[in-house]
Amino acid sequence: MNGAFALDRVRVVLSRPSHPGNIGAAARAMKTMGLSQLWLVSPAAFPDPVADARASGAVDLLESARVVATLEEALAGTVLAAAVTARRRELSLPRMTARAAAVELVRWSGRGDLALVFGNETSGLSNEEVGLCSMPVTIPTNPDFSSLNLGAAVQLLCYEMRMAAMTPADVYAGDPQPQVATHDEVEGFLAHLEQAVTESGFHEPHNPRRLMPRLRRLFARVRLEKEEVGILRGMLSSFQRKAE
Amino acid sequence: MNGAFALDRVRVVLSRPSHPGNIGAAARAMKTMGLSQLWLVSPAAFPDPVADARASGAVDLLESARVVATLEEALAGTVLAAAVTARRRELSLPRMTARAAAVELVRWSGRGDLALVFGNETSGLSNEEVGLCSMPVTIPTNPDFSSLNLGAAVQLLCYEMRMAAMTPADVYAGDPQPQVATHDEVEGFLAHLEQAVTESGFHEPHNPRRLMPRLRRLFARVRLEKEEVGILRGMLSSFQRKAE
Repeated sequence: MNGAFALDRVRVVLSRPSHPGNIGAAARAMKTMGLSQLWLVSPAAFPDPVADARASGAVDLLESARVVATLEEALAGTVLAAAVTARRRELSLPRMTARAAAVELVRWSGRGDLALVFGNETSGLSNEEVGLCSMPVTIPTNPDFSSLNLGAAVQLLCYEMRMAAMTPADVYAGDPQPQVATHDEVEGFLAHLEQAVTESGFHEPHNPRRLMPRLRRLFARVRLEKEEVGILRGMLSSFQRKAE
Repeated sequence: MNGAFALDRVRVVLSRPSHPGNIGAAARAMKTMGLSQLWLVSPAAFPDPVADARASGAVDLLESARVVATLEEALAGTVLAAAVTARRRELSLPRMTARAAAVELVRWSGRGDLALVFGNETSGLSNEEVGLCSMPVTIPTNPDFSSLNLGAAVQLLCYEMRMAAMTPADVYAGDPQPQVATHDEVEGFLAHLEQAVTESGFHEPHNPRRLMPRLRRLFARVRLEKEEVGILRGMLSSFQRKAE
C-alpha cells in the first residue's frame, strides 16, 4: 500500500458551502496535495463559473464532485470521518491536531474510505454534524486571530494528509544527490590544510590558539562533497606553489 | 524562550509581489499562525484597498509592513533566510521540506531575526534571490499539479512555523481534561460485566468463545473516563435488578 493509495481514499466533504469560490479554492488545494474526491453537501451554488475560475487547473475535481443532500449520504461507506472544527464543544470527543489526525487517518486507509468534513464558512459545523463524525480535528491557530478561511483550512488538512501518507524518500525523489566526501577524504583535506597554514605562518604549532579545532568544527558543519574536497585541495596547492 | 518569541522573530518577505490581493492573503495567513513581521520588496501596488480587503482582520500587519527596494535590505540583520521555491536549481544547496526547515528556523530563533522569502507569483524567486538565502525550502506537493498560490504557500509555511514553535501542551491548553478511569476502576467494571453476562446466560464460562477477551479489547480502545465507568456499572446493575 503506497501513499497515493491512502490519499485516493479520502473524501473531502464540504457541508453547506455558501460561496462557490471557496469550492473552487478547495478543489485546487486538494489537487496540489494529490487528493481527488470532493463531496458537496447542499452547496448554495454549484456548478458555478466562479468555482471553475478559482479551481484554476483543478476543474477536473469539480467535474467529478459528488453533490448530496445530507452529510449522512456523504459519509455512507466511510470507516473514519474527521470533523474539522475550531470550537471546543460540550461532551465532544477529545480533539486532535490536524497533524495527529492525518497520521490516524492514513493508518485507517487500508480499511475503507475516509472523510475530512468541513462546515459552512460562517456557522461552521453544527453539533449534529460533528456528532456524525468520529474524530474532531483542530488546526492550531493564533488564539487571538483564528480566522482561517475555508480554502486555507482545506489546504492545511490536505497538506497534512500528504505529509502523513508520503515518505521523506518520496519528497526528495529526483533531487540531485551529490557524492558526499568520505571520512578519510575529509581527514586528508584537514591534514593538507594544517600543512598549508603551518607553511604560511598563520598556524604556529607551538602556539596553536585552537585554530585547527575551530577549522575542523567549521568543516564538520559543511558536510563536504567529494568535488568540493578536490576544489579546496587544489586551492591549497595553488597557495603553496605561489609561496615557493 | 517561548514559542511566541520565535514567531516574533520571523520576517515573511514577499519579493516583487504582483497582486495586492496576495499581499492581503499573506497578512491574514500570517496572523492566523501568530506571525507579524511582513516585509515587501518592490511590490507592484501597495498600499492598496484590495490588499486591505483580503487581509480581513489582519490589516494591522499591512499597516506595520516594511516596504524596501531590494531583497538585500529585507535580509539585513537576519541570521538565517529560507527561500521558498518549487524548483530544483543547479548548484543549489540541498532542499529541505517546509517541516524540516521550520524546525531548523525555530532552533536558530535565539540568535537573531529569521526570514521566509517568497518570490513573485508568476516567476518565483530568481536564482540571484535564492543565492542570497541560506536554505532552499520546498513544500511537498502533487508532482502533477504543484500550483500552490502565494497565499497558500505563506499559510503552509507559517503553520509549520507555529507547529515547530509551539508545544502540544500549548495546542491543547484550555481543552477540558475529563478524569480518565484508573486501571483498577476499569478492571472492576470488566469483572462486573463478566458477572452480568454470565448471569444473563450470554456468557457461558465452560464455552467462553473468547467473549471476555473481545470485550476487554473493545474497552481498551475506548480509554474509559471515570464518569463513564459509573454509567456503565449503573446500567449493568439495572439489567441485573430487572432480571431478579
